[in-house]
Amino acid sequence: MKFKNGLLVFSVMVLLLSCKEQNSSEIQNIETVAVMPEQEASLIFTKGNKITNNNFVGTAYVSMLISVDSLNHTYVGNVTFEPGARTNWHSHPSGQIILVVDGEGYYQEKGSPKRVLQKGDAVKCPPNLPHWHGASSDSEFIQLAISSSENGPTEWLEPVTEEEYNANN
Amino acid sequence: MKFKNGLLVFSVMVLLLSCKEQNSSEIQNIETVAVMPEQEASLIFTKGNKITNNNFVGTAYVSMLISVDSLNHTYVGNVTFEPGARTNWHSHPSGQIILVVDGEGYYQEKGSPKRVLQKGDAVKCPPNLPHWHGASSDSEFIQLAISSSENGPTEWLEPVTEEEYNANN
Repeated sequence: MKFKNGLLVFSVMVLLLSCKEQNSSEIQNIETVAVMPEQEASLIFTKGNKITNNNFVGTAYVSMLISVDSLNHTYVGNVTFEPGARTNWHSHPSGQIILVVDGEGYYQEKGSPKRVLQKGDAVKCPPNLPHWHGASSDSEFIQLAISSSENGPTEWLEPVTEEEYNANN
Repeated sequence: MKFKNGLLVFSVMVLLLSCKEQNSSEIQNIETVAVMPEQEASLIFTKGNKITNNNFVGTAYVSMLISVDSLNHTYVGNVTFEPGARTNWHSHPSGQIILVVDGEGYYQEKGSPKRVLQKGDAVKCPPNLPHWHGASSDSEFIQLAISSSENGPTEWLEPVTEEEYNANN
């Protein structure tokens, strides 16, 4: 873990503190440590900061592109998973939209087979349906995550097992 | 205007007709003609179909990546503006999020100066605030448009004048 820029840490703090109280729970679910992204020039959206909470396994980064406010409940995060990295199982009370910007990854809804996602794919996950997403074992995976804070925060569940992650449906 | 594939026209019709009644007004605001996109392999998201309604000036394409349904009110369109193309002035009752995927374009809210947008930029437009967006005069402009059908359809207003489009603030 590299601390290259204290100003970025400060900026993240300001971002977190500036969220309106009623809508802050979603944003505050994502704890990050500032890391200066490398080779960011070739990316479309900023890579953001390393995710350090326990809701992810492996190395992942998030950049909040759009945060909620008193008029707008929709938020957009650009999430970069290194190979093998993934979320824990979780659900969103307003559902979630995933748009794949680059790489190859996996997406699975509870009770359904794991799906392979590629650049350009768009997924609409229903409200309150447990699911997980992340990179495949040999590819980075960059995706936009779109959801709403309107009906409450993300519910985080158990980690994805190795059997679930490696399943060949 | 090239009709290369009748099946695509049929598919667009099916897409329009399959929208749930309560949420169909947003989608039906976008009238398209099927055109087989060229050189699409290098793009992230599909280019979609040429927009033929009177709410746009110039040549633009839209691909609906995420449509609304009875559980999800958020929709996502990938819009490609050829150089000089732009929307008319319009407003969204739930606001709009714009994420720039490629190229250079303009964005202006009523009463504010025109802004230049570049790849990677993210804009949050407040509800009911008239605005327009489009390509600069010498660059293609590809952007994701995210909004919600929850509070009603887009309100379309007058075309952007040449003076507004060319303004150097």
